[in-house]
Amino acid sequence: MATVTSKTGQAVERVSFDSLLKRRLFYTPSFEIYGGYSGLFDYGPPGCALLTNIVDQWRKHFILEEDMLEVDCPAITPEEVLKTSGHVEKFADWMCKDPKTGEIFRADHLVEEVLEARLKGDKEARGQRIEVDEAKDAKKKKKVKDIKAVKLDDAVVQEYEEVLAKIDNYDGKDLGALIVKYQIKNPGTGGDVLPPVAFNLMFETNIGPTGQLKGYLRPETAQGQFVNFAKLLDFNQQGMPFASASIGKSFRNEISPRSGLLRVREFLMAEIEHFVDPEGGKKHARFDEVKHIELDFLDRNTQLEGKTNITRMSIGEAVSLKMVDNETLGYFLARIHLFLLRIGIDPKRTRFRQHMANEMAHYAADCWDAELQSSYGWIECVGCADRSAYDLTVHAKKTGAPLHVRQVRDEPLKFEQWEVALDKKKAGPKFKKDAKAIDDALNNLSQELLEKLSLELREKGKVDIELPETERRVELEKDLVTIEKHQKVIHTREFTPNVIEPSFGIGRIIYTLLEHSYWYREGTEKAAGDTEKRGVLSFPPIVAPTKVLLVPLSNNPDFKLSLQKLGTRLRHLGVSSRVDDSSVSIGRRYARNDELGTPFGVTVDFQSVKDDTVTLRDRDSTKQVRADVDTICNAIKSMVDGKTSWADTQKELPEFTQQEVD
Amino acid sequence: MATVTSKTGQAVERVSFDSLLKRRLFYTPSFEIYGGYSGLFDYGPPGCALLTNIVDQWRKHFILEEDMLEVDCPAITPEEVLKTSGHVEKFADWMCKDPKTGEIFRADHLVEEVLEARLKGDKEARGQRIEVDEAKDAKKKKKVKDIKAVKLDDAVVQEYEEVLAKIDNYDGKDLGALIVKYQIKNPGTGGDVLPPVAFNLMFETNIGPTGQLKGYLRPETAQGQFVNFAKLLDFNQQGMPFASASIGKSFRNEISPRSGLLRVREFLMAEIEHFVDPEGGKKHARFDEVKHIELDFLDRNTQLEGKTNITRMSIGEAVSLKMVDNETLGYFLARIHLFLLRIGIDPKRTRFRQHMANEMAHYAADCWDAELQSSYGWIECVGCADRSAYDLTVHAKKTGAPLHVRQVRDEPLKFEQWEVALDKKKAGPKFKKDAKAIDDALNNLSQELLEKLSLELREKGKVDIELPETERRVELEKDLVTIEKHQKVIHTREFTPNVIEPSFGIGRIIYTLLEHSYWYREGTEKAAGDTEKRGVLSFPPIVAPTKVLLVPLSNNPDFKLSLQKLGTRLRHLGVSSRVDDSSVSIGRRYARNDELGTPFGVTVDFQSVKDDTVTLRDRDSTKQVRADVDTICNAIKSMVDGKTSWADTQKELPEFTQQEVD
Repeated sequence: MATVTSKTGQAVERVSFDSLLKRRLFYTPSFEIYGGYSGLFDYGPPGCALLTNIVDQWRKHFILEEDMLEVDCPAITPEEVLKTSGHVEKFADWMCKDPKTGEIFRADHLVEEVLEARLKGDKEARGQRIEVDEAKDAKKKKKVKDIKAVKLDDAVVQEYEEVLAKIDNYDGKDLGALIVKYQIKNPGTGGDVLPPVAFNLMFETNIGPTGQLKGYLRPETAQGQFVNFAKLLDFNQQGMPFASASIGKSFRNEISPRSGLLRVREFLMAEIEHFVDPEGGKKHARFDEVKHIELDFLDRNTQLEGKTNITRMSIGEAVSLKMVDNETLGYFLARIHLFLLRIGIDPKRTRFRQHMANEMAHYAADCWDAELQSSYGWIECVGCADRSAYDLTVHAKKTGAPLHVRQVRDEPLKFEQWEVALDKKKAGPKFKKDAKAIDDALNNLSQELLEKLSLELREKGKVDIELPETERRVELEKDLVTIEKHQKVIHTREFTPNVIEPSFGIGRIIYTLLEHSYWYREGTEKAAGDTEKRGVLSFPPIVAPTKVLLVPLSNNPDFKLSLQKLGTRLRHLGVSSRVDDSSVSIGRRYARNDELGTPFGVTVDFQSVKDDTVTLRDRDSTKQVRADVDTICNAIKSMVDGKTSWADTQKELPEFTQQEVD
Repeated sequence: MATVTSKTGQAVERVSFDSLLKRRLFYTPSFEIYGGYSGLFDYGPPGCALLTNIVDQWRKHFILEEDMLEVDCPAITPEEVLKTSGHVEKFADWMCKDPKTGEIFRADHLVEEVLEARLKGDKEARGQRIEVDEAKDAKKKKKVKDIKAVKLDDAVVQEYEEVLAKIDNYDGKDLGALIVKYQIKNPGTGGDVLPPVAFNLMFETNIGPTGQLKGYLRPETAQGQFVNFAKLLDFNQQGMPFASASIGKSFRNEISPRSGLLRVREFLMAEIEHFVDPEGGKKHARFDEVKHIELDFLDRNTQLEGKTNITRMSIGEAVSLKMVDNETLGYFLARIHLFLLRIGIDPKRTRFRQHMANEMAHYAADCWDAELQSSYGWIECVGCADRSAYDLTVHAKKTGAPLHVRQVRDEPLKFEQWEVALDKKKAGPKFKKDAKAIDDALNNLSQELLEKLSLELREKGKVDIELPETERRVELEKDLVTIEKHQKVIHTREFTPNVIEPSFGIGRIIYTLLEHSYWYREGTEKAAGDTEKRGVLSFPPIVAPTKVLLVPLSNNPDFKLSLQKLGTRLRHLGVSSRVDDSSVSIGRRYARNDELGTPFGVTVDFQSVKDDTVTLRDRDSTKQVRADVDTICNAIKSMVDGKTSWADTQKELPEFTQQEVD
């Protein structure tokens, strides 16, 4: 059974954590009254608010802070665009079908599942303790029910372990060979499976009524940004470097999605495409601002040694050691880290893992994932790749669009060059239809050859050249041809920018944030018989779904006016609040809002009606202070904006020690 | 040629207005380097910012203001859900194919286009002036090139005009009959078209690898909200009424989209489903807050008379006259109006048009559209329908899910009822396999029949009843059956809520807002030879893409520090700004930002470096004031928050009259 580790180090079975999230409607399986469909989830009210706040922070942290050019493109993408990008051909997983039952397995998962089950059976037969690898277990589609306690040869054990370590590296042919070699069958029935075939992960559809125009739902937002490059460069008044950004849904038709929000068929992405001149080492103007920031790195070499130990160092050092390829990539790794910190991700459960050479696309220069640890193991939540000039180059080649930058050189480029010219007026009548072939042949001569020929022309008064297609040679007199050295000055430079792409999976970040924010209080004895664990989600105020809960002590109508005044005052300060005037005890109302992650609570009581004072409760400590409405509202505003902490508020305002009424 | 009317009454050809929008990248055809695909558009940086600001205002105005329960559901929707909702069967347009050319026409558009062309030809033949109906023209797929100047019979003219007036009412069969009757052909080639067939407007796809699970991209966000009704009611602690809301992309595979952003294949919707008790007249607790608000109505009766005159009255009066069906519907019409006003829509170009009976779905109780006027005519931008209990009822019936409300009655319901009971212990052995049929038959008897039978039983000591399936009769002695009148008390009440649905097309609102915000200044003479019209987009600061443009007088490095301080100060106040330090004149930089709709500009000059003062420019008047940085920043903040206007600022701060350097 997978276990969620709370931020205070408590262990909770994931099933009970999940039930909190469903009970409070953070998210829920979509279309559940129709039986549910795997890989599709709905966000409920607190999930939506969390999502909106995180996206808002993302926009401020990245787009506004760096004047990025946001674009919003359709999810529906014509086939031609995704053919060019390579997705139609390559964006696939390998699947195996059981022809008897019709079941479909993801081939790598099937191999993994069966071999792991056999290794477990072996351990059992050897009387060893079985350590359940939660992370891998959770990734499995279907548990192998019958782990037979069969002892394997030591050599076989080693072979299986090597296969499992390299499971991400096999293609369909390799996986098919493994299935044959190790006699891997349908784990449920023992039946044979067919050899792996590629299954494209894009959802396919038709655009328009003709049935002639195929389209896909985009698997990433990036292509919409690339095809707009020339317009964005114009909008940026030709300034380089610059970044575009997109926040929107992407779609992947997973073969068999599981792991809750971590592997879904429709998901929100936030992607940046930072366009940078490939010359000059991809420096970043603001790198100095972040170079001192320390990150936990798991680099390629460490992984090649089969290890997972973390190297902690500053991003400045990592770039200077060339572990991280360049400043721009390093700058974004640090900025990603700051963003995750800001929204409440636990830095102790964050690491930056470098892609192995065979994990990356062939064109990528370097790639790092921000991996966050949860009960599902270490999960890629942000990717940060240097995609080189690949995408712009292929789209430009396919369409002829000028997806490049033309810059005036600081210093004009000066050089000498041999140039040849045929006198076409004379050559035409003389050579007739050969004239063009001769002209082409001359223009294709190398600088070396031209130099040689110019000498020949000066010495002999003629040259003879070969016509490539026909292998005939023709003789050209000096009145027909000139070969001269010219001084050339080039004032502009053209280049295709490279792209650094930080790419965020917002749903994965949200799920991890929920785990990282979670802990529980033991139920108090006072509540009759109520000793259950009381969950708390300690979101930072900045992303909390609701900032303030307003609680009247009872349904006494006198409290109504005070509540209205409070709500209006907070709204004017830009702070969202919510009233809970249900008839249950204040303690229960606060407990509900602790599960919703509401950081502050304000209680209106009889005293409030008399002297306009209210109590303010802190979610995490349950401590309370009391002051007049204005003071309390300002204190909340300051904490919500992140300018002060609860500790500051507690120092300034008198504590209120009356017990919560349970 | 369609003409855009500016907010100052100036007329501009739409093509030049469109070119401003494209030049400033508000939006642009998607995948244009691949030739473009109709009905798909990208928002560029200012378009995205406008979109984000409008969605943010929408969330505040509706969701936060009324504690609505936001949900975010997938666009991918399983077929079964959309079969239940009726979309698989009915969400279609009629199309005609030309079998020779393969061209496909939307049938109603084809009829409209051809008949209008003939009417024009008739006018020409009669020597009348042809008034081009811009709105209808723009809606057409393909202009009929050869308007022949043929005079028609007066009766035919009248017939055509009647058909055109009712064009939205015809189904496929009707349209097919019109095509035959009026000999309507492919306008380009004169070739015959096939009879209309239904084309479902949903994009179809397969979910998962099996090919067995069909899905569609949702055509509206509503269904995701309905299927979650029971969970939302729980989340709301059983409180009624309440509303859910969703902001997300929807998809319609239009047959031949045109009209720019007004008819697209993928679009952002913001939808509210307000669930209300159908009993008690659908009152709304906050109706009093809005009842004085006056709206321009175009009601059903006026339209039935073939007129379009507006009735202006308060929403309170409209509801009390029953022109608007109920308070809740009326409340939302007023709230929609306030929202549109807030973001800058021209109230003089806003009207609320009631649907005709045949426009509405059969289950709808009433429906009003907020229509906004633009160069494309009056366009539905917000719909507000009373969908009755239809959706919840069909989903509940299909799935068995409890999509209803159970409430404790204020007063228990008391009544008397005849009840029948079979003594099963005795009946079982006696009737064997018929026992169940007898029990069922008894339980299906009406109250009237039970009363009669009770009398018979008392008088004769037995009754005989018919077994429906077999038509046999059986006799039951009084020891086997009792029929008695019981006092019943029912404490709870179950009902399926009705739904009031305000539904916003964000893209259409954005396009209209662009038109409503637009006007131009004549170019000044001073700029050498520069007398072009200078476009301005006068967005309210609250939705403007960028709030402040920061402009250094020149590239003098002394200005850098002042600019940084300004930017930081504004960011702390939560105001987005952007620096333009390009080398063109200040006048040109401001002109660019007038086109982008940036309401304020701050110029940093040599004086600023000395005494920390800067000038603040107003976009609409181009007037300037001067004060120290703090004062200027606070003035901006206050105007951006809508607390003060430029007139207030101008009164308080000294004017700065130095000319802009063109």
